[in-house]
Amino acid sequence: MNREFLISEIRRKKSFLCVGLDPDVLKLPSHLPKNAEGVKEFCLEIIKTTLDYCVSYKLNVAFFESLGWEGFKVFEEIVASIPKSHFIIADAKRGDIGNTSELYARAFFERMNCDALTINPYMGSDSVKPFLNHKDKWAIVLGLTSNEGAQDFELGQMGDQYLFEKVLKSCSDWGSKESMMFVIGATQAPYYEAIRAIIPDHFLLIPGVGAQGGSLNDVCKGLLNDDIGILVNSSREIIYASNTEDFAIKAGEKAKELAEEMSQYL
Amino acid sequence: MNREFLISEIRRKKSFLCVGLDPDVLKLPSHLPKNAEGVKEFCLEIIKTTLDYCVSYKLNVAFFESLGWEGFKVFEEIVASIPKSHFIIADAKRGDIGNTSELYARAFFERMNCDALTINPYMGSDSVKPFLNHKDKWAIVLGLTSNEGAQDFELGQMGDQYLFEKVLKSCSDWGSKESMMFVIGATQAPYYEAIRAIIPDHFLLIPGVGAQGGSLNDVCKGLLNDDIGILVNSSREIIYASNTEDFAIKAGEKAKELAEEMSQYL
Repeated sequence: MNREFLISEIRRKKSFLCVGLDPDVLKLPSHLPKNAEGVKEFCLEIIKTTLDYCVSYKLNVAFFESLGWEGFKVFEEIVASIPKSHFIIADAKRGDIGNTSELYARAFFERMNCDALTINPYMGSDSVKPFLNHKDKWAIVLGLTSNEGAQDFELGQMGDQYLFEKVLKSCSDWGSKESMMFVIGATQAPYYEAIRAIIPDHFLLIPGVGAQGGSLNDVCKGLLNDDIGILVNSSREIIYASNTEDFAIKAGEKAKELAEEMSQYL
Repeated sequence: MNREFLISEIRRKKSFLCVGLDPDVLKLPSHLPKNAEGVKEFCLEIIKTTLDYCVSYKLNVAFFESLGWEGFKVFEEIVASIPKSHFIIADAKRGDIGNTSELYARAFFERMNCDALTINPYMGSDSVKPFLNHKDKWAIVLGLTSNEGAQDFELGQMGDQYLFEKVLKSCSDWGSKESMMFVIGATQAPYYEAIRAIIPDHFLLIPGVGAQGGSLNDVCKGLLNDDIGILVNSSREIIYASNTEDFAIKAGEKAKELAEEMSQYL
């Protein structure tokens, strides 16, 4: 998916919601089998009821890998079932030496036809660049994440900047706003101004609203730009809105509620 | 596998060789099918002929994921086929927020029964710690990698130390020498002394000898400790030693040659 189409879908739906499909097999509603098939049914039902309120789905690969190859198979089946009107993110946080990163790109962009893959920048340029030369595909690089551990290294001082600022600067030199986004946690409001000073135009993928405590108001005030420029992810709040047979209906209602909240900022 | 057993196997075999199984489907010998089944046969044959000369196998997950779920399935089958006398490393470079890292640990340590998983430390403590409380399982944290991109962030100056030194210090506070190793590239000889000053006792997983240009002599002089403390990985040099039907025989010969070279340092 290219940038222009993504922006037009956000404007049309008045929503920059990304639904995070992080299906922990142990937390499935009780009537579903606790296996890969249960995970598949769970995700497909939620996709049906949330489709109209979001522009993107983010699937965290860990939740599928934890079920072995059967989980990986339903991961592929779920990705294949999502309409191409929606921006599909494989949240895999990959990154390796150049020839190996190229294989991850082949896996997620070509074989599985995802639009975007999250990338861990620690290993530097040759671990990031192989994801940037696939037309209308995106590298979403970890910048400043939402978790407590962001303190340990990302917020380490490197000369007159934080490590995550150096990451934003370096990576935005390697990829354009047409091929790269960044992960910025919704719990990191004090750094929003500095972030937009470095990357005014790039789209940001923002987890951490809801269960992790981030505020949608802070995110919108601090990070929206003229092209919108944000995708706000919500996972647990939506997919676990109910634990009974009405889980998908409740997920749809929660997604609708979030989309309505978002529309006020557009 | 625990540390004591690993050391005893290295002493018994006089080898600290780790064979890297990075099977690119496009580089398989011409008589093998260019699919997951071909990859499986390729790896199983190489394991047979190299088993006596190495103490460890490292499977880079990217090469399997690039084939989708069928690749992931043969990944699991290959791991299951390796005798438990050998230390099995899933080279996946994972790391995510705490609850998600826990799922990766579940996948690779419990479901697949690997001994160790490579971990990317960028996201900090809660992304690393979930891998440390699984008995006789290991987190192998990226320290200073062998690739050119190591310059970009790992060798960035953070106060009076490099980022990778801060990573070594912080992570070695979180995990002991019984649960944590570090990846140190064989191309990084100028930093070996500083590395052993910070982590004198930890085992190191060392890629980059051979195709990437690192020297075994430098590695041994700089990084061996009283408990040996190193696993040296060789991938391409072994698995692509021949491109015809004798590929496994040639791989075995190359592994034997490397093991003999290693024995001189023990």
